[in-house]
Amino acid sequence: MVSQHEFSTADSLITIDLDAIVANWRYLDSLSSGSTLTAGVVKANAYGLGADKVAPSLAAAGCRLFFVMSLAEGINLRADLRAAGHDAIPIFCLSGCHAGQEPEFLHHGLSPVINDLTQIARLGMFAQRHDIRIPAALHIDTGMSRLGLNDDETDWLIEHSQDGANALEGIDLVYLMSHLASAEDPDSQANKQQLDAFRALMPFFPSAKASLANSGGILLGTDYQFDMTRPGIALYGEHPAGTTDRADQAMAAQKLRCAVTWDARILQLRQAKSGDAVGYGGTHVLTRDSLIATVGVGYADGYPRCLGGVATAMVGGHKVPVIGRVSMDSLALDVTDIPQNEIRAAVFARLLGDEYTPGMMANDAGTIGYEILTGLGRRPARRFLGDR
Amino acid sequence: MVSQHEFSTADSLITIDLDAIVANWRYLDSLSSGSTLTAGVVKANAYGLGADKVAPSLAAAGCRLFFVMSLAEGINLRADLRAAGHDAIPIFCLSGCHAGQEPEFLHHGLSPVINDLTQIARLGMFAQRHDIRIPAALHIDTGMSRLGLNDDETDWLIEHSQDGANALEGIDLVYLMSHLASAEDPDSQANKQQLDAFRALMPFFPSAKASLANSGGILLGTDYQFDMTRPGIALYGEHPAGTTDRADQAMAAQKLRCAVTWDARILQLRQAKSGDAVGYGGTHVLTRDSLIATVGVGYADGYPRCLGGVATAMVGGHKVPVIGRVSMDSLALDVTDIPQNEIRAAVFARLLGDEYTPGMMANDAGTIGYEILTGLGRRPARRFLGDR
Repeated sequence: MVSQHEFSTADSLITIDLDAIVANWRYLDSLSSGSTLTAGVVKANAYGLGADKVAPSLAAAGCRLFFVMSLAEGINLRADLRAAGHDAIPIFCLSGCHAGQEPEFLHHGLSPVINDLTQIARLGMFAQRHDIRIPAALHIDTGMSRLGLNDDETDWLIEHSQDGANALEGIDLVYLMSHLASAEDPDSQANKQQLDAFRALMPFFPSAKASLANSGGILLGTDYQFDMTRPGIALYGEHPAGTTDRADQAMAAQKLRCAVTWDARILQLRQAKSGDAVGYGGTHVLTRDSLIATVGVGYADGYPRCLGGVATAMVGGHKVPVIGRVSMDSLALDVTDIPQNEIRAAVFARLLGDEYTPGMMANDAGTIGYEILTGLGRRPARRFLGDR
Repeated sequence: MVSQHEFSTADSLITIDLDAIVANWRYLDSLSSGSTLTAGVVKANAYGLGADKVAPSLAAAGCRLFFVMSLAEGINLRADLRAAGHDAIPIFCLSGCHAGQEPEFLHHGLSPVINDLTQIARLGMFAQRHDIRIPAALHIDTGMSRLGLNDDETDWLIEHSQDGANALEGIDLVYLMSHLASAEDPDSQANKQQLDAFRALMPFFPSAKASLANSGGILLGTDYQFDMTRPGIALYGEHPAGTTDRADQAMAAQKLRCAVTWDARILQLRQAKSGDAVGYGGTHVLTRDSLIATVGVGYADGYPRCLGGVATAMVGGHKVPVIGRVSMDSLALDVTDIPQNEIRAAVFARLLGDEYTPGMMANDAGTIGYEILTGLGRRPARRFLGDR
């Protein structure tokens, strides 16, 4: 329950359950052997939920490696972990180390995930100039064509790393990595193909540990888990397949705890008449005398505009429809069917939670839960449960 | 042009042209008579572009009234204006004053836009207790059924504000306001109906100034402009009708300057082979040997995920397609057709700008430019042109 007081000066409140995120990490960690390290992927501000809170909570629970995307994210995360008393935890930046960023990587103790040969050469020269070895991961593409060395580049690197040659001089290759393109679909042939391609490369980098699995990869089973797994979306309570119909996936999804609820202040209750138009463009015309609750969340808060006339919200335990177009700062709910005494006492509507998860919202919006979470705006107030 | 250096530690850079926003404000101001005040609507962090920079720039140009949504936005804006040396500029909060917020409104010199009778009563009692008068606007609904007094409430208020009764005691009613639901469509009958309804109410609030027009309303002509206009989207360079085919609207759109460009760092150039799959799910399969640029913007940055396979970007003056699914932190461009010497020298891709405006992106994403702007993420670096 949320009282009027907790909204303070904001018109909506996002509650993030750090205990749920920690529980999800522990569950994912339990799926692999004791020798497999379970990292925490906290890029994109921990999928929109707040890396400054999420990462220290995971570190306190035993998470010993983090992934972010950009150097800027790495610098912020280093400061957040340090402020929480967690020093020297490796942080890898998936974007790689771009020209001129080498000193910052060194200064903040960050490790690049190397994606191409130019970076290898640049980092190697930097290391030699400073007489150091730079800890890094190497990303090899095995079928996604996004980031990482392609086949030709990989062949070149292998050729120039043998028989005395060392193209990786100055680089402490901690991890060999690749990324699965279709891990959320256990039936996809692409998974096995990528697994085989990855296994074929491992012997050429014997000193590096191996990592292939994202959240979906962890759920594909032990074959995919190697030395380190990199869960992201599942930490935040969403199954990578979304609102899946498969029984095995639905069962796995049950083990994950929803980490986010979103409550919107009721700004106004209004009696409207049959025939009245609601919202921009007057697209929704009432077919009965109605009671409408206008609540303080709109698309500028990250509530997808396309959900007007599609989504539902919960008011005092009742499911109610979103009617008319979603505005920038508000949306309208038809609360006519809620008993008068209940609706008059209601303070807020729940837009996201156990009854309507990010995955369900994504389904209604034609996207994936990842985009819902990372799209949550900065305007809603935020409250963290389990914050220590 | 953007150099590698300007990305600094980020993977993309949003450039906001404050001079363009000021020029748009001046243009909109020129459309109404000298006695009509042209306010600045800077809610939702100035439509995603940064209220802390936009509002002081507008204030320096002569803007003498601002609108935000929530109390929190009002408090922030008051501090931003004060820091820039602009004291005592009225700030109105469209969300209204909610129970318990009265002292904060008073403390920060903010004015509520009153939406219902309960607020009138609550503010009146607060004013009497403190022996003050609270400057406020009154929002009356004339056909949008979103916020503002409905017909019955308006009748009640008028009845109780005459013949010695004063339901508005303690409230200094500065503005009478309503909001147009279909202002972007000059052919909509709703505009004239709302105008007539608004005019019919004005005589009952003779001491209040009148305000009806948002951006679209300003463009509807002088009938709609009254004492104060409230432009929002047009300040930021977008015509309220989006990418319109109407000649008169296209001409007005020409007068507005695009205020935002978005450049994404090229993270990697990769040769890929005909038959290779690109991105998550392998949805895009190459039909020729290709050169792919992976750039550092994804849906977590506010780039709509649905634009994969749909949108275009500019690289060194060449228009190129976005291929495959948009990832959380990156997207792929097919740059095969760009001459080798040009693409090898390229540092970034332009995702938004004069050639592909927020309105055009919105069109491709099935939404409106407002949602594109307000959805811009916090991860991209930001640079302000014209910042003083």
